[in-house]
Amino acid sequence: MKNVYLDNNATTKIDDKVVEKMMPYLTENYANPSSMYDTAHVCANAIEEARVQVAEFLGVKNEKNIIFTSCATESANTAIKGVVNRCENKNCHIITTQVEHPCVLSVYENLEKKGCKATYVPVNENGELNIEYLLSKVTPETVLVSVMHANNETGAIYPVYDIAKEVKKINKDTKVFVDGVQAAGKIPIELEDTDIDFYSVSGHKFHAPKGVGVLYVKKGNLFEPLLLGGHQESSLRAGTQNTPYIVGLGEAARLAKENLTYELTEVKRLRDKLENGILSAVKNAKLNSKSKERVPNTTNIGFEYIEGELILLYLNELNINASSGSACTSGSLDPSHVLRAQKVPFTSLHGSIRFSLSRFTTEEEIDYAVKNVPEVIKKLARISPFQDELRALGL
Amino acid sequence: MKNVYLDNNATTKIDDKVVEKMMPYLTENYANPSSMYDTAHVCANAIEEARVQVAEFLGVKNEKNIIFTSCATESANTAIKGVVNRCENKNCHIITTQVEHPCVLSVYENLEKKGCKATYVPVNENGELNIEYLLSKVTPETVLVSVMHANNETGAIYPVYDIAKEVKKINKDTKVFVDGVQAAGKIPIELEDTDIDFYSVSGHKFHAPKGVGVLYVKKGNLFEPLLLGGHQESSLRAGTQNTPYIVGLGEAARLAKENLTYELTEVKRLRDKLENGILSAVKNAKLNSKSKERVPNTTNIGFEYIEGELILLYLNELNINASSGSACTSGSLDPSHVLRAQKVPFTSLHGSIRFSLSRFTTEEEIDYAVKNVPEVIKKLARISPFQDELRALGL
Repeated sequence: MKNVYLDNNATTKIDDKVVEKMMPYLTENYANPSSMYDTAHVCANAIEEARVQVAEFLGVKNEKNIIFTSCATESANTAIKGVVNRCENKNCHIITTQVEHPCVLSVYENLEKKGCKATYVPVNENGELNIEYLLSKVTPETVLVSVMHANNETGAIYPVYDIAKEVKKINKDTKVFVDGVQAAGKIPIELEDTDIDFYSVSGHKFHAPKGVGVLYVKKGNLFEPLLLGGHQESSLRAGTQNTPYIVGLGEAARLAKENLTYELTEVKRLRDKLENGILSAVKNAKLNSKSKERVPNTTNIGFEYIEGELILLYLNELNINASSGSACTSGSLDPSHVLRAQKVPFTSLHGSIRFSLSRFTTEEEIDYAVKNVPEVIKKLARISPFQDELRALGL
Repeated sequence: MKNVYLDNNATTKIDDKVVEKMMPYLTENYANPSSMYDTAHVCANAIEEARVQVAEFLGVKNEKNIIFTSCATESANTAIKGVVNRCENKNCHIITTQVEHPCVLSVYENLEKKGCKATYVPVNENGELNIEYLLSKVTPETVLVSVMHANNETGAIYPVYDIAKEVKKINKDTKVFVDGVQAAGKIPIELEDTDIDFYSVSGHKFHAPKGVGVLYVKKGNLFEPLLLGGHQESSLRAGTQNTPYIVGLGEAARLAKENLTYELTEVKRLRDKLENGILSAVKNAKLNSKSKERVPNTTNIGFEYIEGELILLYLNELNINASSGSACTSGSLDPSHVLRAQKVPFTSLHGSIRFSLSRFTTEEEIDYAVKNVPEVIKKLARISPFQDELRALGL
């Protein structure tokens, strides 16, 4: 079996159509889009076309509210620091969740060191956010509320539109930032007429290349740019624009919109087949993706009394790519902060594996995984130091 | 005549060999380099290979001192803010030059608003830096000295190694940042055993794509990263690594090193042919690139009593691409801050044009430009409102 890639929340294959669209800008159309001559205008126009495609993808009417960045990490850093750095009160208050992506949590930890006060909203055992708690913490000092749209590890969807609306009712000056990285391409996004002020997206999570991202900024929101320099991107993000990747991102956005129904039906069907197949075949398997609302491509399963790194190692030998935690924290042996937040017991915490599909995942690949993942778990159960506990589970 | 691209200081064509090297990483090798499986290790290894290539290109022994960024603007913002944000003294002193690139000057202007004191070192009429003045301004409060290696508009080379050495003699704690964007690929760079602490490079100025840059950080220099999040790039630059462009940058660095002699001889010969051809054929032409040391590909010529934007417009109609000022400030009608700093008289300031070549510039293209640029100037002289002055020059 060739490589079975079930780690699409870490990154995705660039769609061939996206590569095709980028090629002219990697070859003959190389002018600096800020230059004054015809060959440069070709590039500038291609960028503006991509901006329209991304705006349509995110349900945004005015494409001028779309800023291209180098990645979602940059988008998040720009939005969060941009809001906080405008505060005269260096001890301002921010609210986020315990289950945000490390690129968001790191920024808050850094801001806390500089005097900001941060509230981290917990989730319940299904990974659902405690929204009452969140809203109860909004005060006149709260400058920012930041909630991800979908969780990268479990796929849980958070009700960001409602949260934004309720937050504004309590404090209309509080800005709302949504990390939309794991929602883009998986569920419909409609930002127009919502109370979300900033929304970030990463190209490489929906079949565009790594190294290009988006920050949506609702009209009227001023912030201090992270990258200062030229006048590019309405002076909100300096640096020569990456024409090929921006063009690719536009095409990827168009394709993602086009394939959304497929994602919500076929990808979901394959994900459910994988999930049910593993859960029914493996006695020590427990589902971690238990939230009521979930993106269609993700499942996270804990295997009790088995070490996750070992599972990944064995799966790798069978050419199955999956992950534990986010790619950004891989290499670290700390158990997932997301699963800890939803109080996954230690017995399955260390053996939790995320499988994430895409529109390129085939039935054959899922059948292969359904057949082989249980085999791997059985093999590892035999060498687990927890033989009594496993026997009690019927293994 | 097909397009004659003489704006290589704005951006360059991606070398076909660079595109070829990138292609596997735009297609089959798409895994997240931070992931744990074999297909990811292929990408991680390719990135480390590129890091070695870039280190060799910059004359750096330990490739771990090379950080990949999304562009030189990000590199500059990271270095400058990284140094200043570590200062407890919010009124710290920084020294830079009047002729830096806008992406550097903007950061200083922003820091000044926040309380930093900045000294801007002037240049003489040849565009040469007043180094005595610079050194006289270094005090115990000076946290950073920032001087570009070569000027983007005139090509003037500044003695950055000597400046760094002398600065450290006065204050060993002062950090030295060099914007090397316009030097890379044009002159040899040897950072090992120098006193330069930070050095930034942009891929797209030497035939790699737009959207990838480098920050060299001399060992032992701590700074607060600009992008917080994952552990990538030794935790100094978060964000999923852009494997294709990093691989491309490595190859472009290798090729630039290989072609350096050609750059210093053939490209220089063609540049001189262009410069001498125009200066001898056009009576109201004055050389602005007058510094003793200059990169081999750049010339900047002022055409008295003619409007620069008009020249560019007419050149564009002949498929000749050149520029006035930097691409990052194009669209603005302010005359170049670099030429104003070297006191270019207003009579030629507004009609100053930069021509910048590359190793892909052909003899045929230069012959075409030498023939056509004087024609354009003569045509525009006829419609200039300064007929008396032009007549006095013999036109």
